Amino acid sequence: MRSHYYRERLDKCSHLMKDMELDAILLTKPANMFYLTGDGRLCAFAMITKEGHVALGVPKTDVEDVKQFAHFDELMGFEDEVGMIHTIAHYFEHFDIEKGNVGLEYTFLTQSMMAMVTHPHAKPKEIMVKDCTHIMSELRMIKDDDEIERIKKAAKVAESGMKAAVDALKPGITESQVAAEAEYSMRQAGAEEFWRSYVSSGDRTNIAHGLPSHRKLKQGDLVMIDIHPIFNGYSADMCRTICVGKPSKEQHEAYELYLKAQQSTIEKVKAGIGVGELEVAMHGVLKDAGYGEHIFGPPIHGVGIEFEEAPLPPGHAFFHGEKEPEPLEANTVIAVGNCGLYLGNFGVRVEDTVAVKEKGHEVLTGYPRHLEL
Amino acid sequence: MRSHYYRERLDKCSHLMKDMELDAILLTKPANMFYLTGDGRLCAFAMITKEGHVALGVPKTDVEDVKQFAHFDELMGFEDEVGMIHTIAHYFEHFDIEKGNVGLEYTFLTQSMMAMVTHPHAKPKEIMVKDCTHIMSELRMIKDDDEIERIKKAAKVAESGMKAAVDALKPGITESQVAAEAEYSMRQAGAEEFWRSYVSSGDRTNIAHGLPSHRKLKQGDLVMIDIHPIFNGYSADMCRTICVGKPSKEQHEAYELYLKAQQSTIEKVKAGIGVGELEVAMHGVLKDAGYGEHIFGPPIHGVGIEFEEAPLPPGHAFFHGEKEPEPLEANTVIAVGNCGLYLGNFGVRVEDTVAVKEKGHEVLTGYPRHLEL
Repeated sequence: MRSHYYRERLDKCSHLMKDMELDAILLTKPANMFYLTGDGRLCAFAMITKEGHVALGVPKTDVEDVKQFAHFDELMGFEDEVGMIHTIAHYFEHFDIEKGNVGLEYTFLTQSMMAMVTHPHAKPKEIMVKDCTHIMSELRMIKDDDEIERIKKAAKVAESGMKAAVDALKPGITESQVAAEAEYSMRQAGAEEFWRSYVSSGDRTNIAHGLPSHRKLKQGDLVMIDIHPIFNGYSADMCRTICVGKPSKEQHEAYELYLKAQQSTIEKVKAGIGVGELEVAMHGVLKDAGYGEHIFGPPIHGVGIEFEEAPLPPGHAFFHGEKEPEPLEANTVIAVGNCGLYLGNFGVRVEDTVAVKEKGHEVLTGYPRHLEL
Repeated sequence: MRSHYYRERLDKCSHLMKDMELDAILLTKPANMFYLTGDGRLCAFAMITKEGHVALGVPKTDVEDVKQFAHFDELMGFEDEVGMIHTIAHYFEHFDIEKGNVGLEYTFLTQSMMAMVTHPHAKPKEIMVKDCTHIMSELRMIKDDDEIERIKKAAKVAESGMKAAVDALKPGITESQVAAEAEYSMRQAGAEEFWRSYVSSGDRTNIAHGLPSHRKLKQGDLVMIDIHPIFNGYSADMCRTICVGKPSKEQHEAYELYLKAQQSTIEKVKAGIGVGELEVAMHGVLKDAGYGEHIFGPPIHGVGIEFEEAPLPPGHAFFHGEKEPEPLEANTVIAVGNCGLYLGNFGVRVEDTVAVKEKGHEVLTGYPRHLEL
């Protein structure tokens, strides 16, 4: 990506840091480092000062590699955890930050990682810590053209993965083997990586997080396939529910109702609408049909570097350290259909990645929405 | 698994909790819940009292499914985060725990998850929190026969994945496509899941965490392939480094040295030896050959439900909330070869999963260790 993007992002970040009286933020979450510097790798950190200076710490093995990707002012390699702590201390000294506030990623740092980055040998005692989660969310929420293009390509990759998975459906194949087809196809179609795939079947379509198991598909089973490829650092999110064979009347009716709820919610997507409004709309269709007790999960979330990111629905946002989202702006990208309709012996769900436009929206994941093969 | 295993594990857990003056532990990490109850799923929790009672909270959609897998005394479904908080509060009241100490997983809980499970509507004010990471590590460290069998099967699955990846190596294929071959084969061979695969090539073999990229293999490249299948809940960990074509003298020498270090360290593995001793042994071979500045990463870690778990080397353990490990006991399973030898323009690494025996060891991952195809 061209470097002026990073300058603009850092400038915007500086403004948000000043609003929160932060002197620096210390990032360890790869997605956030990737957004602000162009490189997000494991076991590394980025310190960003309120003046917009970027200092990176990476494993000493990675120093040359990171130079090819990252935009930064300072770079140091470290040997191990102790080295990482000392590198953090060095940067606080280098930037002359002795007191004030540093922002940390409360939704990412475990207790033990928190203890490490705030260790007395890392962080000067008089620097206080604050949560900077919502700064990063606010920065990443509205996508630029280059980001939208990457998400579109990830969506195409998802279509390829879904086709391979659906083509493989037949009695006797395991859920894990269905996932194998989707994942193999996504990597062949250009995904460098993917987030965890969900494939559940039969009774298991009723559970909230259907990770693939050894369960073998049976004639008449529903199969729920939810995939999330990553293309050049950006993700798409798509779920389809398919019947192996002829669906029962109950399966058919539940599916048609869900699809109506999802599609009519997508129809409402445009700049200015709130995530909460979309949630109410989607739940409304299901509730009006008498299925209010069978809904589970928030129907909407953002999509970008992560397949689930801000904006989150108001209820969810609170517990994820996020602010209640503002009305959606153009070039936000969301997934619609993250909640399921769960009837006890089976569940249905259809989810698509949708870009918010000034006067409407664009559905990026175009794979057909047919219950029958 | 037969239920007496869970009774024994809970009894042992009770003893460790009493030593730490814990009245209960509250688990949300799937690996820990799986070990103590037989079921570990996302967005769920298990409260274990010092008397060994098990209370589960799961998404309301999952109540019937969890009954098929988990050993428990109490089970409740919840609707959302608020419901989860109230379910936790309900169990504290049900078990009559109004004060005292509750153990939490400090190496797993983010700041925001911590805020949720200790929310005033979840945890009574007079209950204090402590880190229970090392209780779970101590419980999980020594494997029973059933666990060893599962890890052996995971190791066989890893061999199948490695063969598929190595067979696919040729100039022009991307790192991501190599990963695709390994992952596809592992699922076909019976893995229900796998942890993140690492495939790096050329210059990228020098970086610490080589996630697959779009880089295309070239003649003369080294390719580092590190895979971690999961079979019936248990993992194996294997890494191989292979040359596409004829290795250079420098590549060949570095590889042979590394293999000597790794194999001679494996030779030392038996009950009674310390992880620190093995670390010193492995580093020793590399240092004696003049490569001390080119080592990165801890050479040894445990393998089990997770592909990286306790025991960790002493230095690493401190930062992961673990105690310094005791000498290894029989039926501990470790990976040997987690550190790499990084020469700047390339790196080499060979890693195997090894079961500790009373009078020696058993190497579980048998794929050939040849640099050349």
